[in-house]
Amino acid sequence: MANWIAVDWGTTRMRAWSMDDAGQVLASAQSDLGMGALTPAGFETALLDTAGDWIDGPTRVVACGMVGARQGWADAGYAVAPCKPPTGAHAVPAPSEDPRLEVFLLPGVSQQRPADVMRGEETQVAGFLALHPDFDGVICLPGTHTKWVRVSAGEIVSFRSFMTGEIFALLSHQSVLRHGLEGEGWDGEAFDAGVTDGMARPQLLTSDLFCLRAEGLLHGMEAPAARARLSGLLIGMELAGARPYWLGQDLAFIGAETLSDAYLRALKAQAATGTRMDAEAMTLAGLTAARAALG
Amino acid sequence: MANWIAVDWGTTRMRAWSMDDAGQVLASAQSDLGMGALTPAGFETALLDTAGDWIDGPTRVVACGMVGARQGWADAGYAVAPCKPPTGAHAVPAPSEDPRLEVFLLPGVSQQRPADVMRGEETQVAGFLALHPDFDGVICLPGTHTKWVRVSAGEIVSFRSFMTGEIFALLSHQSVLRHGLEGEGWDGEAFDAGVTDGMARPQLLTSDLFCLRAEGLLHGMEAPAARARLSGLLIGMELAGARPYWLGQDLAFIGAETLSDAYLRALKAQAATGTRMDAEAMTLAGLTAARAALG
Repeated sequence: MANWIAVDWGTTRMRAWSMDDAGQVLASAQSDLGMGALTPAGFETALLDTAGDWIDGPTRVVACGMVGARQGWADAGYAVAPCKPPTGAHAVPAPSEDPRLEVFLLPGVSQQRPADVMRGEETQVAGFLALHPDFDGVICLPGTHTKWVRVSAGEIVSFRSFMTGEIFALLSHQSVLRHGLEGEGWDGEAFDAGVTDGMARPQLLTSDLFCLRAEGLLHGMEAPAARARLSGLLIGMELAGARPYWLGQDLAFIGAETLSDAYLRALKAQAATGTRMDAEAMTLAGLTAARAALG
Repeated sequence: MANWIAVDWGTTRMRAWSMDDAGQVLASAQSDLGMGALTPAGFETALLDTAGDWIDGPTRVVACGMVGARQGWADAGYAVAPCKPPTGAHAVPAPSEDPRLEVFLLPGVSQQRPADVMRGEETQVAGFLALHPDFDGVICLPGTHTKWVRVSAGEIVSFRSFMTGEIFALLSHQSVLRHGLEGEGWDGEAFDAGVTDGMARPQLLTSDLFCLRAEGLLHGMEAPAARARLSGLLIGMELAGARPYWLGQDLAFIGAETLSDAYLRALKAQAATGTRMDAEAMTLAGLTAARAALG
């Protein structure tokens, strides 16, 4: 049975871990019932459906992510950067009918100017800092909305989000380009050329995108090259915009392995390097630290 | 009864006009059965359903647009720029079972490097040139895939497409930004500021986009400002990329009135001006010129 339950509850899915007192994982489960599919009243049932088997007495649940958004289980608010990543002391209780449950939601982090928000990534940053308390540099969290987070003295100093991943998905599945992008395979050289062009001439992005379609029609460009070039153009443009975040910085990456490796490959051409961390391990380290701070 | 029928058949809709010998419109009709909704065998039925009432004897049909694509009624191919806009002499007959129909499809125009294609816009350019045979400058055709077309000595010299309109639609309706963009209204100052930022720092586009979401969450940015700023960011980025096409050029705009006016407003801040032409009139002038050249 769980000593406590760690939960990462995003927009499109929820993952839960049965944890022992030492922070070791006893079991894990997941659900497609993300925050976007639930009303506030639905979260408790979804949690019990996914993790109920682990519960045989009073159990604490510590959750991060969109579950704490205004449309989530309860509004956990935001800490305002510059700030330490929120921890258990800042967690907000969520209402539950099952008397065995004691649910805490972690706040996100916001930034006034430029206006920006994160929910979930701050817990991965907290996990990273729990393991590397003296880190001074930048953490990149590649994903649907990639975040670049400047960290110093245990604080999130500033951060910047890029919609690169979401735009890649929209263009791949919903746009006129989709016909030329279907299938498997990846052309690393096309990715590299896309990065170069995206960095050098970001103002031509929407034109370079239409070129992908025309290259397919006129010159037979195949899907592995088109998909890799699309990814390269978008990541290259992001790297041009995020340059102050990576140039000359100590870099860590927390995100899916393939995507993190794409960023690292793109940065390598700029003579920048970074260390890839396991995303799940960072989430669990952050939730474990938050639970310890609940008291 | 029609002397001939003019058709503009795009991906998402078809418009048909009953024409007399002098190029005057006798009647018009439209259908949602665009090329994207039809197989090759379906075009004839769709045409007869829309325009059949105008036909009481042998009738020529002259059509431009995606109807002439590889997946259209028949593949009308491309003329290769630099070239004059295709006209009747280059039209490709489309198969029909109704013996009264004689259908001709106009080719599009392609460009080898940078790879680019148009289908339909070349006929509007032809119509513009029929009315302004000595024009030497650039024609901008704002739309889903905005085209900038350099014209000289009656030829399409070069052109460049930008996916600005399609990306605006995807972000407005399918992305995380959609929640903050719903409703009516337009904030002209937010548009202008978006143009300025999009031109000055295109590399931050995907970050400036996420800012729209955060501005709504943190600072209460409302939909008319968010929508106008989104449009401004994308058009500003396009103008930065298309600069060689508009700087110091004689400019004409062929497209929807509201969208053309947005481009003209953005260019005015750059001390550039242009003339807006009626898009339907240009299409009809181009189809009329093509029909005359059929012989």
